[in-house]
Amino acid sequence: MCRWAAYIGSPIYLEDVICRPGHSLVRQSQGARRCHTAVNADGFGVAWYGERDEPGLYRDIMPAWSDSNLKSLTATLKSHLFLAHVRASTGTATSRNNCHPFVVGKWSFMHNGQFGGYDSYRRHAEVMIPDEYYPHRKGATDSEALFLTALGEGLDGDPLGAMRRATARFEALARQRGETPHVRLTAAFSDGLKLYALRYASDDQAPTLFHRWSDTRAGRAVVSEPLESDETGWLEVPVQSFCVFDGPDVAITPFLPMAEREAA
Amino acid sequence: MCRWAAYIGSPIYLEDVICRPGHSLVRQSQGARRCHTAVNADGFGVAWYGERDEPGLYRDIMPAWSDSNLKSLTATLKSHLFLAHVRASTGTATSRNNCHPFVVGKWSFMHNGQFGGYDSYRRHAEVMIPDEYYPHRKGATDSEALFLTALGEGLDGDPLGAMRRATARFEALARQRGETPHVRLTAAFSDGLKLYALRYASDDQAPTLFHRWSDTRAGRAVVSEPLESDETGWLEVPVQSFCVFDGPDVAITPFLPMAEREAA
Amino acid sequence: MCRWAAYIGSPIYLEDVICRPGHSLVRQSQGARRCHTAVNADGFGVAWYGERDEPGLYRDIMPAWSDSNLKSLTATLKSHLFLAHVRASTGTATSRNNCHPFVVGKWSFMHNGQFGGYDSYRRHAEVMIPDEYYPHRKGATDSEALFLTALGEGLDGDPLGAMRRATARFEALARQRGETPHVRLTAAFSDGLKLYALRYASDDQAPTLFHRWSDTRAGRAVVSEPLESDETGWLEVPVQSFCVFDGPDVAITPFLPMAEREAA
Amino acid sequence: MCRWAAYIGSPIYLEDVICRPGHSLVRQSQGARRCHTAVNADGFGVAWYGERDEPGLYRDIMPAWSDSNLKSLTATLKSHLFLAHVRASTGTATSRNNCHPFVVGKWSFMHNGQFGGYDSYRRHAEVMIPDEYYPHRKGATDSEALFLTALGEGLDGDPLGAMRRATARFEALARQRGETPHVRLTAAFSDGLKLYALRYASDDQAPTLFHRWSDTRAGRAVVSEPLESDETGWLEVPVQSFCVFDGPDVAITPFLPMAEREAA
Repeated sequence: MCRWAAYIGSPIYLEDVICRPGHSLVRQSQGARRCHTAVNADGFGVAWYGERDEPGLYRDIMPAWSDSNLKSLTATLKSHLFLAHVRASTGTATSRNNCHPFVVGKWSFMHNGQFGGYDSYRRHAEVMIPDEYYPHRKGATDSEALFLTALGEGLDGDPLGAMRRATARFEALARQRGETPHVRLTAAFSDGLKLYALRYASDDQAPTLFHRWSDTRAGRAVVSEPLESDETGWLEVPVQSFCVFDGPDVAITPFLPMAEREAA
Repeated sequence: MCRWAAYIGSPIYLEDVICRPGHSLVRQSQGARRCHTAVNADGFGVAWYGERDEPGLYRDIMPAWSDSNLKSLTATLKSHLFLAHVRASTGTATSRNNCHPFVVGKWSFMHNGQFGGYDSYRRHAEVMIPDEYYPHRKGATDSEALFLTALGEGLDGDPLGAMRRATARFEALARQRGETPHVRLTAAFSDGLKLYALRYASDDQAPTLFHRWSDTRAGRAVVSEPLESDETGWLEVPVQSFCVFDGPDVAITPFLPMAEREAA
Repeated sequence: MCRWAAYIGSPIYLEDVICRPGHSLVRQSQGARRCHTAVNADGFGVAWYGERDEPGLYRDIMPAWSDSNLKSLTATLKSHLFLAHVRASTGTATSRNNCHPFVVGKWSFMHNGQFGGYDSYRRHAEVMIPDEYYPHRKGATDSEALFLTALGEGLDGDPLGAMRRATARFEALARQRGETPHVRLTAAFSDGLKLYALRYASDDQAPTLFHRWSDTRAGRAVVSEPLESDETGWLEVPVQSFCVFDGPDVAITPFLPMAEREAA
Repeated sequence: MCRWAAYIGSPIYLEDVICRPGHSLVRQSQGARRCHTAVNADGFGVAWYGERDEPGLYRDIMPAWSDSNLKSLTATLKSHLFLAHVRASTGTATSRNNCHPFVVGKWSFMHNGQFGGYDSYRRHAEVMIPDEYYPHRKGATDSEALFLTALGEGLDGDPLGAMRRATARFEALARQRGETPHVRLTAAFSDGLKLYALRYASDDQAPTLFHRWSDTRAGRAVVSEPLESDETGWLEVPVQSFCVFDGPDVAITPFLPMAEREAA
């Protein structure tokens, strides 16, 4: 499991979400409260959008709390839209290429959860990644494979449909191996314009997901865990939901994997 | 604070202390039970003695649990005498040169605890390190400074006296700054022949220290926390004690800092 | 391109090949003389055999010359059979999982060279790795894929045949893409008993390969470049050759890729 | 020795100096032409000024050419004033805290050169750093010690005088050890408003220093080596010079170490 935090709104320093709140993402890397792995110290990453289409990306293998670069970057960088992640490995190595977010062109993606039994069908998941996106396959995580598969399923034009189809294809791989899919999937992704999030599980263990609009900041945080424990206004995203955050607007619709493209 | 484990006896694979026990040192890096900082993930290190006088040294900045090299090294290296450490920084950076153990010639040294207010007199502690040993000053920790000062005080010929004098000099520095010394000091060190350990605090918060002889193994583990929770035979070292482990023998004498060389 | 060095014989300190000679492997990482990339600083690795079947493995992403751990490990570890490698990336990331040697069970493998145009058929090379070995696919290099494919082709019982078939399958992938295979392949691998090496290219650019028996040491070095510039006795392995080093014995036979299993 | 590049002017992407030119700083890390060490791969760093007084700082221990984070950061960050450095260690460890630039509050500092025989008086150089700045002493380099000493000598109000006095104090330490000072010192530093540079040597081996104004960019690059080999307009800074770059303006005055404060 992992923890993550994203933001969309008026530009703020990244530290205002990642480092400074009482239960900031860095604090969650040391002691998360709402997931099985309290310590999320197997690397971290940040993707932030600025003037260019492609986001900046900074990832490293140290615990987020001990990285001097992260502290400086988040204290000096401002962004209107960013994604940040602290990792607790479910098996794959602690390497930069296994750290979230993943970035391809203008798209960034990060994930909290896991595909149960992924090791038994990982090779087959590789094959689902289209040739067009395979050069971006740098690591070994299920998360990166899901992202690249979703890109192949048309993430660019149809984010909801692409994520439904990509998730369905992963579940189908598990079934082909004679296994019941065990999917826990709380993800955030962005094209630099809107922020998308997803909360889904094939069982009753969907990783947590909250969001909160701040009038002061004119922006919204979308997070694994509320950034302050004594703050009102945090809304929990229901399980099996797909969210679109667009400026101050929120649209939440049901999410279920669906294999057929017509379903989109 | 930190956690550490040492061993002296018939050669064993390092993993038999560091990785394999139910509450191994690596487990303690994720969840220590007897210290304030449950997570000790700001780097780690191992020093082991073999055929040469100078021990091998492997240190890195990742959490011990996520380092593939550590896993392989401890599974293949055998030693009759080794020291291993997992670090929770009390302020200094997560860098290899701040990781324990420290090695100078045949001597290795590691420490769990801290010198309260060290930052206020760090520059003055640098001056205590003799020119002879200053080239070995690589990092910024109080622990390394204590070790080098102890070497200057004659660790080689008089381990107990040197540690008493070095500790007293650190306490004196605090007093010169108008502060009450707050020293917590549980250390292990070795010249490759004997294993020395020390448990001392200027208050009632001396870090824990245990040891246990294993007949099966014909060796003794000396550790911050017992390596198995359901195992008998773990003996706690009393506070304010200096220990010499020599083959199967144990000699424990009182330890108090003392400035005068005659006191040794 | 990369540089590597291996040894089989009476146990020696690893530094006697890796660090101490005038043109040691570490020196070659700074300034190789017989390859296009003089600087081989994109990580390094060492695998050494000891008492256990599986070799120890130490790999990291720094230049070999600046890694304090490597210096200490090679000064204290002795082995009768080891492989060491310094890397110059031909494109894939500088990460531990992309560093050589690769280890699976008792087998270790390292490679100097490249498969031209590999990016265009990388996804298809993944598919060649059998399910049995896919859990060992940690990185993204062509070299690791070749090793795992060779394991699937029976490296254990028929090293020469397995390498011929694996190489042929890579060349076939290139042809299927409508490309002429450009393979440069100078590899060493071992099961802990014998040391195997291979020098092959589909053009006239096979990376260099030398070996030399030392009576003093009662051992043989097998290397990309001679370890001393003024030393006699270095023999160059002819191109398109497969070598078996077994104690003091050397057997060199022609090597050509061949797809058919009967060909072995 | 090392190589560095700085910029002051209209905001540009950092990559326009660090990565994209034909002889960019990253290229210089692989093959510098005007210094003894062609390879400068023992870490790197960038400090850039933005909206806040304190600059952002990113340093790491890999070669600059192989760091994916550096590539992304420089492609997305814009700044009107930044300093970048690639390191070739003259002895101290490859660790982040030994990488340039160094930052204290609004000041950043980087250095190319060395103080000959520094190891013999390093401990005494530590003592020159005032208590006020000693908490910023993180590494072990002569460069960081010079910077902190200069801060203590009044860098904030009198950059030229402070650097003269600090340099003189280092030379005096060498003399006290009975040695002739061997100082090579080409440094850049900034308070976020102006860019300062210095070229000095006690012998005839002052590291190179060039600058060039670009009308297109409305900015000036100040560098160890010209960023393009076929570009006109690069001016070499004379040895024993102190430079102030303030917007488009350049003021170059003689620089000699001088111990007396009146000299300022």
